[in-house]
Amino acid sequence: MFQNDTICATATAQGVGALGIIRISGPDSISLVNQIFKGKDLTKVDSHTVQYGFIVDTKQETQKNVTNIDEVMVAIFKAPKTFTAEDLVEINCHGSPFIQQAIIDLLIQKGARLAEPGEFTQRAFLNGRIDLSQAEAVADLISAENKASHQVALNQMRGGISTELKDLREELINFTALIELELDFSEEDVEFANRSELEELIQNLKYKIRNLLATFEYGNAIKNGVPVAIIGKPNAGKSTLLNALLNEERAIVSDIAGTTRDTIEETITIDGITFRFIDTAGIRETEDVIEAIGVEKAKEKIRQAKIVLHLYEEDIDLLRELESELQDKIVFSLLSKIDKNDWATDRFEKYLQDHYPNMHHFGISVKTGFNFDKLKSELVNSIKSGVDENAVIITNLRHKEALQNAMESLESVESGMKMGLTGDLLAFHLRETLKHIGSITGQIDVDQDILGTIFGKFCIGK
Amino acid sequence: MFQNDTICATATAQGVGALGIIRISGPDSISLVNQIFKGKDLTKVDSHTVQYGFIVDTKQETQKNVTNIDEVMVAIFKAPKTFTAEDLVEINCHGSPFIQQAIIDLLIQKGARLAEPGEFTQRAFLNGRIDLSQAEAVADLISAENKASHQVALNQMRGGISTELKDLREELINFTALIELELDFSEEDVEFANRSELEELIQNLKYKIRNLLATFEYGNAIKNGVPVAIIGKPNAGKSTLLNALLNEERAIVSDIAGTTRDTIEETITIDGITFRFIDTAGIRETEDVIEAIGVEKAKEKIRQAKIVLHLYEEDIDLLRELESELQDKIVFSLLSKIDKNDWATDRFEKYLQDHYPNMHHFGISVKTGFNFDKLKSELVNSIKSGVDENAVIITNLRHKEALQNAMESLESVESGMKMGLTGDLLAFHLRETLKHIGSITGQIDVDQDILGTIFGKFCIGK
Repeated sequence: MFQNDTICATATAQGVGALGIIRISGPDSISLVNQIFKGKDLTKVDSHTVQYGFIVDTKQETQKNVTNIDEVMVAIFKAPKTFTAEDLVEINCHGSPFIQQAIIDLLIQKGARLAEPGEFTQRAFLNGRIDLSQAEAVADLISAENKASHQVALNQMRGGISTELKDLREELINFTALIELELDFSEEDVEFANRSELEELIQNLKYKIRNLLATFEYGNAIKNGVPVAIIGKPNAGKSTLLNALLNEERAIVSDIAGTTRDTIEETITIDGITFRFIDTAGIRETEDVIEAIGVEKAKEKIRQAKIVLHLYEEDIDLLRELESELQDKIVFSLLSKIDKNDWATDRFEKYLQDHYPNMHHFGISVKTGFNFDKLKSELVNSIKSGVDENAVIITNLRHKEALQNAMESLESVESGMKMGLTGDLLAFHLRETLKHIGSITGQIDVDQDILGTIFGKFCIGK
Repeated sequence: MFQNDTICATATAQGVGALGIIRISGPDSISLVNQIFKGKDLTKVDSHTVQYGFIVDTKQETQKNVTNIDEVMVAIFKAPKTFTAEDLVEINCHGSPFIQQAIIDLLIQKGARLAEPGEFTQRAFLNGRIDLSQAEAVADLISAENKASHQVALNQMRGGISTELKDLREELINFTALIELELDFSEEDVEFANRSELEELIQNLKYKIRNLLATFEYGNAIKNGVPVAIIGKPNAGKSTLLNALLNEERAIVSDIAGTTRDTIEETITIDGITFRFIDTAGIRETEDVIEAIGVEKAKEKIRQAKIVLHLYEEDIDLLRELESELQDKIVFSLLSKIDKNDWATDRFEKYLQDHYPNMHHFGISVKTGFNFDKLKSELVNSIKSGVDENAVIITNLRHKEALQNAMESLESVESGMKMGLTGDLLAFHLRETLKHIGSITGQIDVDQDILGTIFGKFCIGK
């Protein structure tokens, strides 16, 4: 990718609509569009104005009839206050793929280049308008399918993680500089960097990073959906419960035009959190499967799950058999069909309370709807618990890994200080820490491959 | 539909893209968007400017955190110089279905109504900014999939048919008024309307309407594609020719992003004209079908076709058998595999020339490509012949029927004049003519049902 040429792409979704947008960015974008525009002289209009006119095929201007391509509105944005921080033009044309392609063809004829996926956002990053984590958030925002992940992406796009680490990172840069300065005076045995202050800064950074890392599990859950396994003996009511959850949700999502949700099987979104029910073809459980195989299949499901919904009627043997698998999982043990199994409540509830204090357990009835809302709200709370939704939340594996690496380097600094490591080695570990933190926002040189991976995931036109 | 409320809809194609547009039109559109916009006061900005800011859920403003929905650019268009001739706002948001739905929900909360399909264009019509035929052209333009139909729609959108009939219609209105005036003086036996001038006007109108009607066949062909039947005896090379035509075309269309063309089977677009090869499942011809059935199937295909490609090798018996079916069709009789059948040229060409003078006939070879380009250009010319592409072209069945009705009424006027019909009867037929002409552009009251049919075909958001 070159930075100094002018790029163009259709920015709206593919297919037929009322309107479409062609986006052009780069030094020649205004003069280039002006060549194919019949209306006001675009090079002389104010920034942030919209001009009415026609896109024309000027190649044919010498002939008897100029070919009009479309009646359009053209929005002019002059650098630097634009999305890319370059001159930017948006052509609002009719939403016909034929017209959009014809306009793109004309722009390319006049010297523009078809943009790579994500190249507009990449320019915003390369031109310093947004940092790398903000650029990544743009892609997350566009693909967000539920309220919670939408909100996290929006916070991130406004600079959440960058702001969070900015001050501490700057302090760390200062300390690193001071320690490196000491190296120049190494024979004089001076200490410019106050070691106890550095120690305190490291503790603060570790605390902050630990908190950010702790949000990843939630962030990942809301971004990719929370895997849920429903287990139970045959006829415990597993499918009935799943269908009841799904049906209620289907009614809710059906009026959201344009979501591709219906291609994803068996997910429900409650209060902004998406739950994915694990039911891969390979381990699809038939109700009449013999019990030994049933336990094996349940184990397989549980391994992939974060939440396990265990449904039982007459005994909780399955729970005992799977005890080791259920460690580290959020478990709901639900007395199924409570409308007719009410007698069993006393028998099991006390036992569960004593033996599995961290488990959610109550009776439920799909038939009467008893505790159905309770199940839904506890599912949501089990994921949200302890997370401040308005805090900065890590959803990106790249960020998580960078933070983990930063943490390791910080620990090397810490132990190095305890062991009385020499200044040059301390400086090395400090530099490493800064590199890892900086890689999140792109404040250090980020490998071209990483940039390619980040922006390659974008839609064309973004 | 009400005219005085404020409507909103997503105007870009469904699905995920970089950007999306929400359109709002009506008296409250600016103040309404202002309620959910964080940025400049939109009620105080100039028309045709774009404002940067955030869409926020102000319902939650009282709480600790305002919920940001999206970072957007809002374009403000003040009446009357807007698409609908009303105050109009376009919100450029991120191209996420979730965000678009959230913004639409907010707008509806604040008092907007979800627009019916085509309602924006309908308002443009009802507010007098465009006439009905122009409104129809907007829908045609959006769905145009080839150059020719795109061009016709664009001409029409700029008022082609209205302009064409405007002057004559006005003259006719004058004459009608004069004849109706005569009725008030009927006892005095005066003639305000010069009968020979009226006669001349009627001839002019008939001439114009006949010309317009003559373009319908072409207009319909370019709008809906030209049906083509390929017939011939088994092994005459029919599939090979079709595949060769299709393959060449596939390579051309493959780089048009977003066309839905690949769902349509067996159509090719040459020089802006789309040809559709008739090959319905019911009459799909297998190469080894026995000959009698083959002829029946060929007849069925021909009935649906406008162009017939007849491929032969050793005899033209099929042509003779189908002689009556081929009347009124454009027929290409092609000596197949000319690379090895060259000997047969003399034998057939002269015969064809003498017996079927209106037929296109030449040899062709898919293998060597001989006459392949000739076939393509003659296919195009056979459709375009006699049509001035820059003239106004009728593509709409509603317009065709209105013109036919106008023609009939004019003929009643004409014969009435010859028969010395009384002024009131003449006036009746003149009014009928005016009604039919006016119904094309909506200059007379068009039935609400017709309006519903016209605008119901639009996308939402247009």
